[in-house]
Amino acid sequence: MPGDNLTRDIIIVGGGPAGLTAGIYTSRARLSSLLIERGLIGGQIANAEWVENFPGFPEGISGIDLGQRLHDQATRFGLETILAEVTGLELQGDQRVVKTSEGDFTTKAVILAGGSNHQKLNVPGEEEFTGRGVSYCATCDSAFFQDQPVAVVGGGDAAITEALHLAKSSAKVTIVHRRDQLRATKILQEKAFAQPKIDFAWDSIVEKIEGEDFVQGLRLHNVKTGQTSNLEVTGVFVSIGFLPDTDYLKDLLPLDEIGQIITNEKMETEVAGVFAAGDIRHNSGRQAITAAGDGATAAIFAEEYLT
Amino acid sequence: MPGDNLTRDIIIVGGGPAGLTAGIYTSRARLSSLLIERGLIGGQIANAEWVENFPGFPEGISGIDLGQRLHDQATRFGLETILAEVTGLELQGDQRVVKTSEGDFTTKAVILAGGSNHQKLNVPGEEEFTGRGVSYCATCDSAFFQDQPVAVVGGGDAAITEALHLAKSSAKVTIVHRRDQLRATKILQEKAFAQPKIDFAWDSIVEKIEGEDFVQGLRLHNVKTGQTSNLEVTGVFVSIGFLPDTDYLKDLLPLDEIGQIITNEKMETEVAGVFAAGDIRHNSGRQAITAAGDGATAAIFAEEYLT
Repeated sequence: MPGDNLTRDIIIVGGGPAGLTAGIYTSRARLSSLLIERGLIGGQIANAEWVENFPGFPEGISGIDLGQRLHDQATRFGLETILAEVTGLELQGDQRVVKTSEGDFTTKAVILAGGSNHQKLNVPGEEEFTGRGVSYCATCDSAFFQDQPVAVVGGGDAAITEALHLAKSSAKVTIVHRRDQLRATKILQEKAFAQPKIDFAWDSIVEKIEGEDFVQGLRLHNVKTGQTSNLEVTGVFVSIGFLPDTDYLKDLLPLDEIGQIITNEKMETEVAGVFAAGDIRHNSGRQAITAAGDGATAAIFAEEYLT
Repeated sequence: MPGDNLTRDIIIVGGGPAGLTAGIYTSRARLSSLLIERGLIGGQIANAEWVENFPGFPEGISGIDLGQRLHDQATRFGLETILAEVTGLELQGDQRVVKTSEGDFTTKAVILAGGSNHQKLNVPGEEEFTGRGVSYCATCDSAFFQDQPVAVVGGGDAAITEALHLAKSSAKVTIVHRRDQLRATKILQEKAFAQPKIDFAWDSIVEKIEGEDFVQGLRLHNVKTGQTSNLEVTGVFVSIGFLPDTDYLKDLLPLDEIGQIITNEKMETEVAGVFAAGDIRHNSGRQAITAAGDGATAAIFAEEYLT
């Protein structure tokens, strides 16, 4: 099924900071450019309530506003955007065919900027209670847990940011972490330790998520003592990492052990004309600004490839 | 001469988008961070009258304002800045000593973000009209010269790439080159010769850049015939090379043939604890946004190195 009969210069897969910045650059370079996004323009950053570390905004900016500004900017220079799910990529000589839920699109070069998904706990109750107490995004769902006790699973920057966010409105936040110290940046750790509503379950993993219609508690297992305990919460926010959606690429491109795309410092993959940028690539800084930088770099070297 | 008696976690050399973004990240990570800038906070971007391609500013932003915002943001998180000329870098075991015009500063890790300078023509009018018709970057500024006649000075890959880029939107592009053939790669030459909008002024050097408020033309001198002629253009793109200021590093780090620092995609150099970001590195995208992305990446992996 053809999406249309054009052959673009560039197709960009993913509408987060990496893809949108690539689009700003390819459009300004007068390359015919199509961006394909599956869901939300802005990508993961659109879920962030407040972004303090995107350079250029000393007072911070809301994630949804930042995403919108990037899209406005790219659109202003001529970037075309469609909503579709990308299901495959085929190489046919010098052409690349991007297969999507809305048909096939042909292009000379591709920038893969699809980001990555939240990793799941894979414990009983997780799937059953997703949307009924189990969440992967505090910014999205904290309002449902006002004045209630919640848990955050994880110990990295994302987990601690989620916990600090939840502490503003929830009754109590317990951070469940498998180790006896956090991985998060020091400034975030300091904030978490200073926040009286935040509590810690160290050396602990979630064994089961329990409830009836909605989550009522977690069964925790202490990996040092072997003891099991119950934690009464009505919400659990899982923040243990990311899985890029790159299954459809595994026979085409070298990926790392969790499926992230390997690139060099020019954002080139091993396949000529196929670039990757942002959280989908191995060794990404996993920040909106590193993704944006990657996107511009990929666009510049894609233009060079096309010339 | 000791600058002070502290040992910092990080010293950042250079106060452009790469260095300032690195500073935002290292300061937020609660690493004691000192940024050393020689001249203008904001670096080269502070010279740009209007920046249209820094993501987040759909209407554009002046370069001086962008530089100031980056500095405000980093300072807000605790970055310390001093003005000094860096003259040397020494490795003493796990410590790095940054030698400057204001004394020596000791640190555990260094991010080199000193940028590079565009080589100048050094002719009358060049300085006067910089930002008002004289540019050193077509990717940055081509949009200001839509449907207008422009010139590119140079004959290498960069110059021809600039000319091809400009030919997409400008009325006419004259390549001014001091020799009777180009130095650029054959494929780029072929493209330039096949592009009807591109014209050549062979054996010619720019003697003077003329105009009133903005550039109106070039006075060219033919080095073979000795004749002088005028070329009417509203823009002139000088692309005769870059000069990173890395002489003081040449016995310490691998540099490329023009002195740019070699890094991997984590912005690591071959020396542990020494990172490079932005235009000073080999294969930089040479854009404010790629520099900012590099700076954040360098900061993230510098933090990892220190942990």
